[in-house]
Amino acid sequence: MSALDQLVKEFGRLPGIGPRTATRLVYHLLRGSREEARRLAGAIEALADRVHPCVLCGTFAEAEVCAICRDPSRDRSVVCIVEGAFEVQSIETTGRYRGLYHVLGGRLSPLDGVGPEALNVAPLVERVRVEPEGIEEVILATSPSVEGEATAVYLEGVLRPLGVRVTRLARGIPVGSDLEYVDGSTLAEALAGRREVHGAQGGGGREGIGEDLDF
Amino acid sequence: MSALDQLVKEFGRLPGIGPRTATRLVYHLLRGSREEARRLAGAIEALADRVHPCVLCGTFAEAEVCAICRDPSRDRSVVCIVEGAFEVQSIETTGRYRGLYHVLGGRLSPLDGVGPEALNVAPLVERVRVEPEGIEEVILATSPSVEGEATAVYLEGVLRPLGVRVTRLARGIPVGSDLEYVDGSTLAEALAGRREVHGAQGGGGREGIGEDLDF
Repeated sequence: MSALDQLVKEFGRLPGIGPRTATRLVYHLLRGSREEARRLAGAIEALADRVHPCVLCGTFAEAEVCAICRDPSRDRSVVCIVEGAFEVQSIETTGRYRGLYHVLGGRLSPLDGVGPEALNVAPLVERVRVEPEGIEEVILATSPSVEGEATAVYLEGVLRPLGVRVTRLARGIPVGSDLEYVDGSTLAEALAGRREVHGAQGGGGREGIGEDLDF
Repeated sequence: MSALDQLVKEFGRLPGIGPRTATRLVYHLLRGSREEARRLAGAIEALADRVHPCVLCGTFAEAEVCAICRDPSRDRSVVCIVEGAFEVQSIETTGRYRGLYHVLGGRLSPLDGVGPEALNVAPLVERVRVEPEGIEEVILATSPSVEGEATAVYLEGVLRPLGVRVTRLARGIPVGSDLEYVDGSTLAEALAGRREVHGAQGGGGREGIGEDLDF
């Protein structure tokens, strides 16, 4: 196979990149300078060589312990549980969370043979048990899919007996969406989770639990 | 900058890949095996090291002269002029063209400072002049954009005096499109270029010029 076809094949393995897009990317690299292509190759090599999961939380980092786990200004009493490291990045982008994370490395999916033992659960239990300053709250931030729900239910069963507060991300209408296009289950969740309006500032939870979550 | 951010930046330089997609690609590589990432890096390196423009036609090849130019079964009397090597690939995929190619490396764009001297025109003129077995026809396959048109008009002016037949790709309604959504200029071109229907086989050109173009 030619170097060109080989790279089309490799690009085509990436998510969301079909053979046509892969070909376009290869020709883009060929049109550019060889330096540019080598810089991309080098950046991928550097990623493979230097980035590994944080030994504590499982997010990707170049150090053994990631910058979030090492940051003394983070609130060590709250741990947000996510399926993958990508979600850590999404939540960090909001700038509204100051606690720690724990990456599960997937979600329960019996049909695909993914049981609890395949997820990063034992280290989580260990973390909740031994964390010296005490983890007070665990936020379940798994996906709102069937598997994500099942994972959350399972984790709640494992974590609540440890005496920790277990919360979930709020369900409701996504910001910027049009009510007309919101599906029934989301609308039902939004109704059930409705919050009282306290003057112009908003805020304040109907069930109280959300009030202290705005870090 | 971390290796992760660096690669997000490099991926983000590729066409059609925004920062969000770039981040997703990086996390995809991190989730996969390190081997997979290294294979991608290696394929890019190999491309940069081994693939170069063919010295005759300008398409990308690993040898000094590309497989098309070397192929003795190709019709050396016809040369198809394209803006970039990507188009060579598109035309080859049709399997309907058996002539040679010539890659211009762009199109005339005075606003961007791309004049005739920036394109691969002089070697084309040379090719038409010295091709031992004689180039009889040059097909202008530039884009149907303003710049592509201007390039075609310019090339016609340069090539016709050399005594070669100059043709253009047919304009008309794209296959599989809905007439309702075809724009006015395309429809006008389709009308002007209409062809007579010869029984069930189709074929046969109104102006005669297209008849012998089905290699």
